[in-house]
Amino acid sequence: MTPAIDVEKLIRAMSEQARTAYRLLADASPEQKNAALLESAREMRAHSERIIAANDADMLAAENAGLANALLDRLKLKQVSVEAMANTLEEIASFPDPVGKTLAEWERPNGLRIERVSVPLGVIGIIYESRPNVTADAGGLCLKSGNAVILRGGSDSLNSSKAIVECLRKGLQFAGLPGDAIQLVQTPDRQAVGEMLTMTGIIDVIIPRGGKSLTERILKESRVPTIQHLDGNCHTYIHQSADARMAKEITLNAKMRRTGICGATESLLVDSDAADKLLPEIIESLIAAGCEIRGDETVCKFDSRVTSASEEDWATEYLDATLSIKTVKDVSEAVAHINRYGSHHTDAIIAEDAAAAKLFLDGVDSAIVLHNASTQFADGGEFGMGGEIGISTGRLHARGPVGIEQLTTYKYAVRGSGQTRLPADGS
Amino acid sequence: MTPAIDVEKLIRAMSEQARTAYRLLADASPEQKNAALLESAREMRAHSERIIAANDADMLAAENAGLANALLDRLKLKQVSVEAMANTLEEIASFPDPVGKTLAEWERPNGLRIERVSVPLGVIGIIYESRPNVTADAGGLCLKSGNAVILRGGSDSLNSSKAIVECLRKGLQFAGLPGDAIQLVQTPDRQAVGEMLTMTGIIDVIIPRGGKSLTERILKESRVPTIQHLDGNCHTYIHQSADARMAKEITLNAKMRRTGICGATESLLVDSDAADKLLPEIIESLIAAGCEIRGDETVCKFDSRVTSASEEDWATEYLDATLSIKTVKDVSEAVAHINRYGSHHTDAIIAEDAAAAKLFLDGVDSAIVLHNASTQFADGGEFGMGGEIGISTGRLHARGPVGIEQLTTYKYAVRGSGQTRLPADGS
Repeated sequence: MTPAIDVEKLIRAMSEQARTAYRLLADASPEQKNAALLESAREMRAHSERIIAANDADMLAAENAGLANALLDRLKLKQVSVEAMANTLEEIASFPDPVGKTLAEWERPNGLRIERVSVPLGVIGIIYESRPNVTADAGGLCLKSGNAVILRGGSDSLNSSKAIVECLRKGLQFAGLPGDAIQLVQTPDRQAVGEMLTMTGIIDVIIPRGGKSLTERILKESRVPTIQHLDGNCHTYIHQSADARMAKEITLNAKMRRTGICGATESLLVDSDAADKLLPEIIESLIAAGCEIRGDETVCKFDSRVTSASEEDWATEYLDATLSIKTVKDVSEAVAHINRYGSHHTDAIIAEDAAAAKLFLDGVDSAIVLHNASTQFADGGEFGMGGEIGISTGRLHARGPVGIEQLTTYKYAVRGSGQTRLPADGS
Repeated sequence: MTPAIDVEKLIRAMSEQARTAYRLLADASPEQKNAALLESAREMRAHSERIIAANDADMLAAENAGLANALLDRLKLKQVSVEAMANTLEEIASFPDPVGKTLAEWERPNGLRIERVSVPLGVIGIIYESRPNVTADAGGLCLKSGNAVILRGGSDSLNSSKAIVECLRKGLQFAGLPGDAIQLVQTPDRQAVGEMLTMTGIIDVIIPRGGKSLTERILKESRVPTIQHLDGNCHTYIHQSADARMAKEITLNAKMRRTGICGATESLLVDSDAADKLLPEIIESLIAAGCEIRGDETVCKFDSRVTSASEEDWATEYLDATLSIKTVKDVSEAVAHINRYGSHHTDAIIAEDAAAAKLFLDGVDSAIVLHNASTQFADGGEFGMGGEIGISTGRLHARGPVGIEQLTTYKYAVRGSGQTRLPADGS
């Protein structure tokens, strides 16, 4: 029997190593960080067999444990997946450096020059589930933004993640940077997560990335500040001025392109005055594509295959081929419904009327609001921000896609020539 | 006997009223918000006797309860204090509106136009101690930035705060805005604070403003995200290249101008090579000004009145006329000492050598780093940001002074012409 490891001690030691590494990484030049990223990509390609063999071991264990097919799918790495991870690291290397940028600068009447300059967040803890490619993405994004990171992936992907982290650490060392800037928690003990959440002052930020129950537990328990990614109960609203063809195409795409992502539309709102004209064809095409529809009384009348929606449906993120549909009087009712039942993630209006679009974009209190486009564009890559760690549904620090810019904070550098503060001047 | 009030129910009702008010306030024009601020200032001046009478009642109760003189000082409102509060509201009205600003804008290859636009944070809970002017400042800053606020001041100042909030609510109503955008918790029951900390999804942000024990309790217990203001263990570091006169003047100001504010210097670091030349005169002038000095072995040798500093002194925020002094080898040792013992608030270097200053400004991991200026400039007003709610020592969202700009977040408005997302394009 192996002796029980002291998880608290392990996580504290890792956190302190990360803190030391962060101070070194914060001084690294953009060239050094990019060299580390490019070497990590090269390592991955050179050792893709090793990564895939590690993944095979994870897959075998997961199959023996009877993991569901959807989870096995997410866990599986193929040659092309390794290539994709390496490409992502190279893409991250190509971004402008997010650290050391002058965000604002001004001079005071007393001659003090004040500069707000971007700096890394510090030490980031990322807690995620079984997708091993998150290991590479998150490691690369943190490295680029000058943050040290402690990765805690799902135990199902432990071997895969180990092999990936090894490549990232070799990249760091190649560039003269501390390998401990990217560490992986290697114990499957669930206590490790709890310990990470108590490391205030050593870990600066916790980012949960995964299902709602994981995220909710972390938000509830964490003593370290978090960047939240909760659910995406996204809406598409069809205004009476909408172009009929555009409304149908966007609705189909927003719901059915991928049903399991957080930007998928879960609820469709339609102006009552336009329902007769637009809804029958939209319902037909959705059902033809394999979507189950739950509607309010009016919607049920259009098609016998539509079942009756309950109050609960309006608040539900299905993450599946199911859509709730509700008719509304006008844009104000649509906005009120979304602000009440939505999750402040992503919501869209389809309208030709510019005034209605403005009311919607201003009034809906969500991280992302769209006019005449699919909610499935809620994605850091689609926004041109490169990779993302997730989509923040919180209001502090970052809202929407969390890319390298959102993984930084700022400090004020104030330059004077001997200024002292007057005795009576304020507090 | 009055029946016990249900504090949980009270705070929930107030929070929901604030949420409703916030949605209306978020739609208010800059002109409306400014009209509310100006009318509030007018109300305060017109009813200054009422405010002062309310404050007299608070003062009498506080004196009878045997409150310390320092606390009585903070509680006391004079005619000139009411005038100062009114002036602050007028100054806040004169600032550019922080909401609805385009922070960034770009177009994607598929024609989607992406705009990042500033919006209010939402509903803010501010928990503070007995200074009644915080009621006016915080109310005004939140109003300007479009946030609804629930104020929970010290029970000692309840009557004063009530009278002040009445003026603010009259200002809101005058401008056609909901009075409930500014609410005061009127029960002295301490449970009220605990209830505020659990209102996730209704209160968006909690800002504690007060002593370390209050703040630490809130950071520990809050389920609502917080903007932290912890201690200010600030340093001034005198590099060997420093101008002797500037070093003396800045040190005296940084320590002694006001010893009780968070930007006061608590620890002085001096290059060993310059200690002989600079320290005796600085120590002399500090002691002459009434400062107690605790020094390391080298420093003790310069003056018999210097007592020996312990390890604990390096980590202590005295908030008093006490200073610890340590000699260091060079700028690297100074930076390492500050990053280890400091509180990431505000730290300054006095140096003529530009390279040393750069090493310090880059290396010290604090919200504010200064070159050749007093740490007492750590203040939103001195930064030209107008009033401030506090100085954030956290890393997420806001660092340094928290003014109206830091009381906003952003959303993405994405404008398309029918774009749908390609099936195979990423996740």
